Formats: sequence, C-alpha cells, structure tokens
Amino acid sequence: MEVGALPVRSLNYLMTKTGLDGSEDHMVVVAISLFVTLLCACIVLGHLMEEFQYISESVTAIILGFCTGIIVLVASNGASSHVLQFNEELFFIYLLPPIIFNAGFQVKKKQFFRNFIAIMLYGVIGVFISFAIISAGCKFTFPKFGLDKLTIGDYLALGTIFSATDSVCVLQVLNQDDSPLLYSLVFGEGVVNDATSVVLFRAVQKLSFKDFTGMEVIRICGSFLQLFFSSTVLGVAIGLLSAYIIKTLYLARHSTDREIALMTIMAYLSYILAELFYLSGILTVFFCGIVMSHYTWHNVTESSRITTRHGFATMSFIAETFIFLYVGMDALDVDKWKMVQISSGDYFGLFFTIITLVLVGRAAFVFPLSALANYMRKSSDTKITFRQQIVIWWAGLMRGAVSIALAFNQFTSSGDANRPEYAAAITATIGIVLFTLMVFGTATKPLMRCVLPPTSKSEYLESEPHTPKDFSFSDFHVPLLLGSNQLSGSPRPVARRSSLVMLLSAPTNVIHDAWRAFDDAYMRPLFGGRGFVPYNSDPLTNAEDDVAYPCH
Amino acid sequence: MEVGALPVRSLNYLMTKTGLDGSEDHMVVVAISLFVTLLCACIVLGHLMEEFQYISESVTAIILGFCTGIIVLVASNGASSHVLQFNEELFFIYLLPPIIFNAGFQVKKKQFFRNFIAIMLYGVIGVFISFAIISAGCKFTFPKFGLDKLTIGDYLALGTIFSATDSVCVLQVLNQDDSPLLYSLVFGEGVVNDATSVVLFRAVQKLSFKDFTGMEVIRICGSFLQLFFSSTVLGVAIGLLSAYIIKTLYLARHSTDREIALMTIMAYLSYILAELFYLSGILTVFFCGIVMSHYTWHNVTESSRITTRHGFATMSFIAETFIFLYVGMDALDVDKWKMVQISSGDYFGLFFTIITLVLVGRAAFVFPLSALANYMRKSSDTKITFRQQIVIWWAGLMRGAVSIALAFNQFTSSGDANRPEYAAAITATIGIVLFTLMVFGTATKPLMRCVLPPTSKSEYLESEPHTPKDFSFSDFHVPLLLGSNQLSGSPRPVARRSSLVMLLSAPTNVIHDAWRAFDDAYMRPLFGGRGFVPYNSDPLTNAEDDVAYPCH
Repeated sequence: MEVGALPVRSLNYLMTKTGLDGSEDHMVVVAISLFVTLLCACIVLGHLMEEFQYISESVTAIILGFCTGIIVLVASNGASSHVLQFNEELFFIYLLPPIIFNAGFQVKKKQFFRNFIAIMLYGVIGVFISFAIISAGCKFTFPKFGLDKLTIGDYLALGTIFSATDSVCVLQVLNQDDSPLLYSLVFGEGVVNDATSVVLFRAVQKLSFKDFTGMEVIRICGSFLQLFFSSTVLGVAIGLLSAYIIKTLYLARHSTDREIALMTIMAYLSYILAELFYLSGILTVFFCGIVMSHYTWHNVTESSRITTRHGFATMSFIAETFIFLYVGMDALDVDKWKMVQISSGDYFGLFFTIITLVLVGRAAFVFPLSALANYMRKSSDTKITFRQQIVIWWAGLMRGAVSIALAFNQFTSSGDANRPEYAAAITATIGIVLFTLMVFGTATKPLMRCVLPPTSKSEYLESEPHTPKDFSFSDFHVPLLLGSNQLSGSPRPVARRSSLVMLLSAPTNVIHDAWRAFDDAYMRPLFGGRGFVPYNSDPLTNAEDDVAYPCH
Repeated sequence: MEVGALPVRSLNYLMTKTGLDGSEDHMVVVAISLFVTLLCACIVLGHLMEEFQYISESVTAIILGFCTGIIVLVASNGASSHVLQFNEELFFIYLLPPIIFNAGFQVKKKQFFRNFIAIMLYGVIGVFISFAIISAGCKFTFPKFGLDKLTIGDYLALGTIFSATDSVCVLQVLNQDDSPLLYSLVFGEGVVNDATSVVLFRAVQKLSFKDFTGMEVIRICGSFLQLFFSSTVLGVAIGLLSAYIIKTLYLARHSTDREIALMTIMAYLSYILAELFYLSGILTVFFCGIVMSHYTWHNVTESSRITTRHGFATMSFIAETFIFLYVGMDALDVDKWKMVQISSGDYFGLFFTIITLVLVGRAAFVFPLSALANYMRKSSDTKITFRQQIVIWWAGLMRGAVSIALAFNQFTSSGDANRPEYAAAITATIGIVLFTLMVFGTATKPLMRCVLPPTSKSEYLESEPHTPKDFSFSDFHVPLLLGSNQLSGSPRPVARRSSLVMLLSAPTNVIHDAWRAFDDAYMRPLFGGRGFVPYNSDPLTNAEDDVAYPCH
C-alpha cells in the first residue's frame, strides 16, 4: 500500500494484495530499484559533472531522469507513458518538509532577520505583483493561442504557479561569504516565496467568483496575514517545546540517538500539525528549524550536533535530487502531450508568452521593491546595488517542483488531465520548468561572473585550501553582527577587519541588543542554547573544516 | 498515493484525487499527525519509563499504541476498527531495512565471525527444528479447537510464523561488555533467524503439496543455501562498491553530505536489489552493513563517520518504535475478532497450545545445538554454559513484527481476513506477539539477574559514570580478538587484563590472521579502510564518550 518513492502506476498495485511473491508487488520493487539506482547515479555523476562547471547537480538529475524516461518509453514501445507520474502528496508530505526544515536549520539567522523587511517585500509583495501580472497576461493572451476554455480561476492559478520560484541553482553558485547580503536575500526570498505561492494558491482555489468584490481581496490579504502569523507561532512553539524537552529531560544521559530522533520527529510534527490546522507547513517548519538551531541544537551532545547538522542536510539533498529526477522523468508523459489539441506554432507562442510574462513579472517587482528597500535602509553600505538587483531578478526566474506540484493539483484528477486545455497547461508548466532550469540555470554561472566580478576579498576566501562548500563561516559574519557577545570566543581575528561596518549599522544593533538581552534573561534559562553549553570552537581536533554549525 | 506512515484506511484515500483541500487528503494528514505525535510521546515516555527498570521501550510503545487504539475505537463508537491496519509492504520495504542494516553496521564483526558456526546452528538449523515441531504441533492440535479447515500449507506457514523471533528485548537487557559471547550469539541468531524465517516462509508458500517427496525437501534446502550464498555475495559486492566509489572519487572534497547520502542510498539499494532478484534482502543488507562499516566507513570524513553512526542508529530506533506502536494499535482490529467463530475456551486453549509449542520448539534446538557447538569448540573458556543456554533459549521466545507481517501475508487479502479460521490465525498471532513481548519481555530483566548474577567485572564497568548505553567499547573486546594489530593504538590499557584468553583460542586466530593478511594485501589498497585513514582514538575532544564507532 505504502509505495514510498514510487513513480509507478502505483494505484493499480495498491488496490491488490501485496503478496510477497505477487508479480504486482514485484513491480513496486522494480520501480523502487530503478529509482534508487538513479539516485546513486545522480550523486556520482553530479560529482563528476562538477568539473564541467556549468552543469549543476539539479540539471544532472533532470537530464538523467529525462534519459531514463526515454529508455522506459522506448522499452515499453511508447506504451508506458504513465509509468512515471508526478505524485503531489509524495512531494508535499514527504519531500518538501526536509528541504525547508534544513533551510531553516542552516540559515544564518542574523543575516535573515537583518534583511527581514527586504525579504518580505520580495517574497510576499513581490509574489502578489508577479501573480497579478502573469494572471492578467495569461488571461489576455491564452485565447489567442486557442486556449479559450480556461476559467478565471484557472488563470489566477496559473498566476501563482508561475510565480513560485526555485532558487536552488543560484544558491549553488552564489558565494555566501563573498556576498552575504545577496545570499541572504535570495535564500530568504526563496523560502518565503514557496510559502506565499502555496498559500496564495489555496486562497485562489477557495475564491468564489460570483461575488468577487474589493472586500474579497481585503479578506484574502487578512487571512493571508493571519495564516502567516499563526504558522510562524506554531513553528516557534514546537521548536521551543523540543528545546525544553531535551533540556529538561537531558535525554543524552541515555542515548544520543534518542535526542536525534526527537529532533527529527518534532520537526516533522511541526510541519504536519500546520497542515492539520490548515496553516502553511512550509513557514512553520522553516521557523521550527530556526528555533531548533538556536536553542535545541545547543542542548544536545556534540555527536548529536554533528549528526543533525549533516543528517538534515543529507535528507534535504536526497529530497532535492529526487524531485529533479522526478521532474526530468515526468517530461515524457506522452498521454498529456497527445491530448494537447493546439498547433505546435500556437504552443510555442504560448510557451514564449509565459517565459516573457515570467521575466517581466519578476522585473516589475524586483527593481521597484529594491528601491523601496534601499530607501528604508539608512546605511549606504547595506543598500542593494543595481548589479545585486539583477542577480536577485535572475535568481527567481527558475521554476521548479512547487510549480509542477501546484499545476498537477489544479489541472489533474488523480494525475490525469481530462481536458485538452488542462493537458496544455500541464505540459506548458513542465516545459517552462525544464526550460528555465536548463537554460536559465546553466546561464547562471557565466552571468554571475559577469555581473559580480570576484573581489579581492572573495579571492582571499576562496584561496583557503580546506574549506568545504558547506562550511558556514559563522566567524566571518561576526563583523556584521555587532552586539554579539560571541565575539570574545572567536578564534579567527581576521574577521574583525571590517569592524567599521558595525558602527554604521547602529539602529539594527539596538534591536539586536534588546533581543540578546531578552534572550539571555528569559529564553535561554528556560530553553537552553549556546549560553548554557560551553561552546568549543574546535570540537573536532582533526576534522574541524568538515563541520559546519548552524550559525548563532 | 504514497501514504508513508499511514495506518489509516489508506486504500480509500488512495483511489481518490489527493486535492490539497480535499477532506480525504486531510484525513491522511490527520493520521500522520496522530502517528508522529505518538512517536514523540513514545520517545519521551520511553525515557521516563526507564526509571521503572522492567518496562522496556518496546513495551512502552506497544502500550501507547494499544491505548490509542482504544481511544480511536471508543471515539468512533467501535466503528473504525480498520483505522489502524498492519501494512506489510510498509514493514518489509521501509521499516525492516534500516533496522537490519544498522544491525550489520554496528555489529562487532569479530565476535560475529568468531561465533559464526554457533550462530548459524541456532539461526538456520534451529529455525528448521522449531518450524517442524510447531507445524506438526499445530496440525495435530488445531482441529481439536475447532479449526479444521486449515490446509497443510497453512500449518507450515504457521510453523515459520511462530519460529520468527524478536530478540530486541533481551538485547536491551544484555550487557554486551559483560557477556560478549552471549550478546553476540543472541544478536547474531536474531538477524539470521529473521532471514531464515522469511526465506523459509517463501519456500513454503511455493511448495506444491501434490508431489511432496523427500526430493522436494532436498530441493528446498538446496535453494535455501543458494539464496543464502547469493544474498551474502550481493550485499558484500554493493558494500565494496560503495567503498570503492567513495575512496576513488573522494567525494568529501565537495561535500560530506554527498558521502552520507551515497552510503545511505547504496545500503538501501542492496536491500531492494536483493528483493528485485528474489533474494533475501535482510541477509543482503546485513552483510552490506558489515562491509560498509569495515571499508566505506573509514574512507569518509570524521563528520560523516559520526553522522552515519548515529544517523543509522536513529533511523533504526525510529523504525523499531514505529513497529511496536503499530503492533499495539493493531491488536484492536475488532472486525477480525468478531469473525473468529470458535468459543473463547477453545481460543484460550489454542493460545496456550501455541505458547507451549513455542517454548518446546525452542528448547528442542537450543540445548542440543549448544552441546554440538560446545563439542566443536576446543577452548573450554569459550564453551556455552548451561546458564547461557537458558538465556539463549529465553531470548528467542519473544515474537515480533516479522511474525505479524508473515501472518498478514499468509492469511489476509489486502489486510482483510476473509475466512473465520484465517481471522483466528491472525488474532492468535497478534495475541501471541503481545503476550510474549509483554509477559516474557518484562520478565527478562529479573530472569537475567537470576541466571547471570553480575560479576565483579561488570560492576566495574557499570560504575563508570560517563558510559552511555550505546558506546560500543571496541577497546574492551580487544583481548578476545587476538591478531588484531589495532591493539597498539588502544588508549585503554585496562582492556589487556584477560590476555590469557587470547592464547587459548589459537585456531580461530590462525584464520583471523590469514584474513588480516589478505585484507591488508588486497582488499584495503582497493577499498580503503582503517589502514589508510589514520585513526584518531579521541576525535571529539569534549564528547569522546558520546561517540561509538562501529568496531573493527
């Protein structure tokens, strides 16, 4: 019944007895074997491909998935187009939570909160702007390409589908030590964008278009804010609860594994409880991750810290690779392609219209909102330069698995599109995702080099021989984090160089100092955290470079 | 479609569109929430319960599952007996592999191979003996309790179902430093028993009883041996492949997480490939775990080592807790209970007959085979004493999730028993599992104290304040492992005390020395391993007691 990683014609098998020897049961095993083998191949090939610098891991996975899809299709004489089908529940219930939780768990909290306003502008207001432009554009142009049977609800859904970005490619290229501001903005927007798109999509699905007034729009905004707030509170609450349980019970006395199990399960609990209460699981699990890295993570043993740090990252890595494999395989759903009844000319018109809408819709908010964010920033050092704005614009052009999941939700019933225009919408979404990931994604690295020429500082950092990609460099961020009383323990005096920056960002520091005081006085005594566990900056004598800590 | 942790009336939901807002989709979320919450509760309660020393974690999980089952049953006015249903595929494809892999990964390899013959006697020959006795006993007694419609195939299946043991309870109680021989025998038998039972069960299911001759029996034995051998070879091959890939590609240059992902996925790959080729996944993944801990584990970074060590243990821990929760919940399948058409008197007769058969069936091979094993052991120090034989006998009395999974496979169709005698067989199995786990399991600790009074050595060990339960104490085993050139690096001279033992076990050491020479000359240059990665006995300066390494 439980088909796990199953991209197979699952339903058929599910309904029959899963006898140990039954051939149908064995098909499940065959499918899992295929998928697991592909995952292995992805990891190994992705590693080998890094030498060709332009091919990222996600593109490797997509290509591999695509090739496998072709082989399966040929092997089955074109019959088994349905062998590989996107499974929305698998995506939302099992693959997305580890990715988002890991994002929260590893995020540089201070950078995130320092840029909170800009991130919210891009991630919330930006999605609304992009959504409005794309929806209107689709409504206006689609009938010209022969798609005239879509409802207003479908167009609004398309607006959210094509507003959901996938910034993984850009994050793989951006050096977070070289450009912490940019990294934080792109990363933060990516997470908030995921949440906003999903929430907006649900709001649109609930809309009744009979009495669609201005009041309705305000109501959507209100419920959006309420959802945002309660999701955050739930995530923070569960994170704090986990910190309290582990601190109070001191589980380590008995077992490190129990601590890790509790952290993992409570993280998942936050996601699934949010879904239970119709909140945004993405936001909840993201904030749960932040709180866990700030409190819980400091209450556990050293082994648990290393294990959670790398274990969560690994789960996220596997889930991501899995999704891209899936997306690649899914491109070959010949049934849907056959069902599209518009001409190939119209189809390409449709395709490039959407690409244009995506480009324009994003430009329409990145540059104005950046100007607004710059206006609100007092210090000229932290303003977002035009070059940085170009990178932010580019970073959100890729569309990914969220778009596909939402499209399947809107336009299919049990994975089958039952109307030609729905089939066209699905195939167009898959096409856009593949195109943006492959073309825009591959162009990212050259673009970055062109727009952000490496500075002497970055060269300095990159010349360090033993610095793995995933090291979080918390020490290097210290100059940007005045008020941090961690400075005293920092083993890297090199980080003090740009201390002038600190003096220039005084207003933020006042807020930060107030939070530190509150944290030290009330939160830490109750929930633990670094203040109570002596921090050893060199916990692994012979592997210090391999361990990255969630930053503080 | 993919229902993951779903103990719910999954099938209904599976067949409908999993819309984001659909109430049926939401039922899935409700069920997962319930289950995840229970898992959290199990971990926390299991920790608190350790103060009452007789209640083990598995019993806590069963009780919690049982209570939840009652609440769900009452809340639904007795209607939703099917809310919680044992899912065989979930068990065999997702829950069992991490448990068995972890067993192989953390097993003390030298102890395991040193006692290989005895373990095989108990785990293979023993299962055949117990199977024969229980099958014959059931065939003879069941008709007297009103169950006369079972076929010879059903009786043989019952024989394997009640021969599959669950030694987790005993392993939780046994001190593996105090009695390494006993621990290794019980643990090794547990793993081999799992594999043998499943393989035998499949063999029995394939039997045609029309031309059932002596030749057929020999053929079963032959295919059993072939299966055993090829499963082992496959596991070893994939383990070596993982070591070779990681050593050759040196993935750590790019990412620790990628190493961990590759190890995890290749471990699972070994299991699923074995199932693909109709081999025994349990044996394959067990040997893959052994090879991975011997080679692959030494090729990865320090962080990866700690993460895999604790990450795999955590997965195994969660899967085990999950299974026991499941078993507890499953006891309340009222539909099956209602279907049982025999009187309660007969039912209890049936029940106690099976318990007796289990007790006798196990005694019938433990004591004779121990005598045989002792006859083959030259050194009097390594002979299995009568007290130890009692412990081994007791350790295999518990029946667990494997029995339930096999029973569901034999007697149900899509989880429903469609004949009264099948319903009786299922409920009897569940009853036996609960009874043995709760009664025999709880009695284990007092029995151990009685049969194995603590020696001064164990008191010495137990008085060490900072020794977590899961520390593997590889150093303490050194005296038993002559030929080990690791001794030179051992930081604990206390371990050298009983060096006399080494001198007495010379024959084994010859084999072991030969293997070491072969390993050093051919295997390690190709696949890596400890010889090539300098071993730091104190990798964590401030957490050395928390890290346990798979032993060498």
